[in-house]
Amino acid sequence: MTTSVPTTAHRAGAPGVTLAPGRDVRVIDGLRAGLAALFGTQTLEHYSAPPVIARATLDLAGYPQSFPQLLGTVQGNPDGGEPGPTDLALTSAACHHLYPLVAGETITGERSLSVEATCYRGEATSETGRLRSFRMYEIVRFGAPDAVEGWRDEVLVVADGWLRGLGLATEVIAASDPFFGRPGRLVAAVQRAEELKWEVTTELADGLVQSIASANWHKEHFGETFGFTLPDGSFGHSACLAFGLDRILIALRHRHGDDLASWPPAVRRVLDL
Amino acid sequence: MTTSVPTTAHRAGAPGVTLAPGRDVRVIDGLRAGLAALFGTQTLEHYSAPPVIARATLDLAGYPQSFPQLLGTVQGNPDGGEPGPTDLALTSAACHHLYPLVAGETITGERSLSVEATCYRGEATSETGRLRSFRMYEIVRFGAPDAVEGWRDEVLVVADGWLRGLGLATEVIAASDPFFGRPGRLVAAVQRAEELKWEVTTELADGLVQSIASANWHKEHFGETFGFTLPDGSFGHSACLAFGLDRILIALRHRHGDDLASWPPAVRRVLDL
Repeated sequence: MTTSVPTTAHRAGAPGVTLAPGRDVRVIDGLRAGLAALFGTQTLEHYSAPPVIARATLDLAGYPQSFPQLLGTVQGNPDGGEPGPTDLALTSAACHHLYPLVAGETITGERSLSVEATCYRGEATSETGRLRSFRMYEIVRFGAPDAVEGWRDEVLVVADGWLRGLGLATEVIAASDPFFGRPGRLVAAVQRAEELKWEVTTELADGLVQSIASANWHKEHFGETFGFTLPDGSFGHSACLAFGLDRILIALRHRHGDDLASWPPAVRRVLDL
Repeated sequence: MTTSVPTTAHRAGAPGVTLAPGRDVRVIDGLRAGLAALFGTQTLEHYSAPPVIARATLDLAGYPQSFPQLLGTVQGNPDGGEPGPTDLALTSAACHHLYPLVAGETITGERSLSVEATCYRGEATSETGRLRSFRMYEIVRFGAPDAVEGWRDEVLVVADGWLRGLGLATEVIAASDPFFGRPGRLVAAVQRAEELKWEVTTELADGLVQSIASANWHKEHFGETFGFTLPDGSFGHSACLAFGLDRILIALRHRHGDDLASWPPAVRRVLDL
């Protein structure tokens, strides 16, 4: 057929929502395999999570309250009547699927779970990397405060080293989430002051720097809301390390070019290209 | 930690929406690789498509009109106001992402595109296999009427043979979509009478038979709505072959048991387990 294969999918129609052709899938597969090799030994189980999630789980996680402008919910009418809200929202962060799995548990040791999901964020702008639909690979650590904080610091260095190994010029910065409204800005200030959130940033286009990975110490937030505890009865702590696979792909293409065959041999080896 | 790894994710909370643990991911990966090997040589490009899609694309495909009860749309408020409809819906069928790619083209030969997406269907019930969120792998053929119909018949046999090779007892039946309302029932009757839709069915639980793959000849429907034509100026025809990866996984577990290590060697070989 005369159709040429489009290398991007702008014809498919919505800002920040793209089709990945085969060559992109190969890089994403390589990133996934690389992360599994890097963190697999410490991980009790790896999950593939769906792009939708119980709204009740998101509410427990506190997401709609903190990020109402990024939230997407599912409308439908399964019984054939007028469309209305369903029990589902779009997955905002892959890790939200994991907290119900440890609900009611006592965390006696330390272990990680990992998960990948295609996440949705209702971004108002659509510059390069500002995707509304994107793959997130996350490792979540559960345990006591000191151990979890230590883990977060450690894996942040590992993550940054791995991303540098892919040829990316990165910077690790203390960050805060884009909380909505005035109370949110106060939360963000606390988050930054307490250094709860760190981001690994890199250039995705000339002069455009964005976060491609982040490490968050949630303290006892999820332990309290989902009800997992430590042996002394206090709430369990958690931290997560999240990788934005599609943004890393964009950064790699910006750095090494569109032709995978001409990427540095070391990078091709890590990604099994 | 004392937490045992749940093998299903019912604790995570919504009917028909499940987390896949590592052993399920291995089988899904095997199915994907098997399908790529089976259809890759005829396929111009394979895409990974997002779980959301432009509502305008779905409208062009005619999905909301035909299946209003299965449709999911995305509500949001990116600008911080009251939540309302966005420009996005949830992906209903993987192939809907492909038609815009050939919009405006003249199809001179025959070639297939393939695509995988996590789809959403607002199912009102949640018996085994009745998933609201599930992975669909699809091959779409574009071309002239006879050639497309012939392709549909051919790949249906190939698909059935491959599924039988996985140890599944299948049946191939002329089917119709569950169109909504009285006009829909008429469309369904025509669909069945003209043998436009075929399904490969198998047992997913004792006495519960469901479709795990289907082959549809769309005739000139998508050619007309998306505007792709044949060299003589008439609208292009299309057909698709769709595999429900999560349902095939359920059927395989029902057939061979929960322990992957005890699955028949021939099946393990095909799935690279």
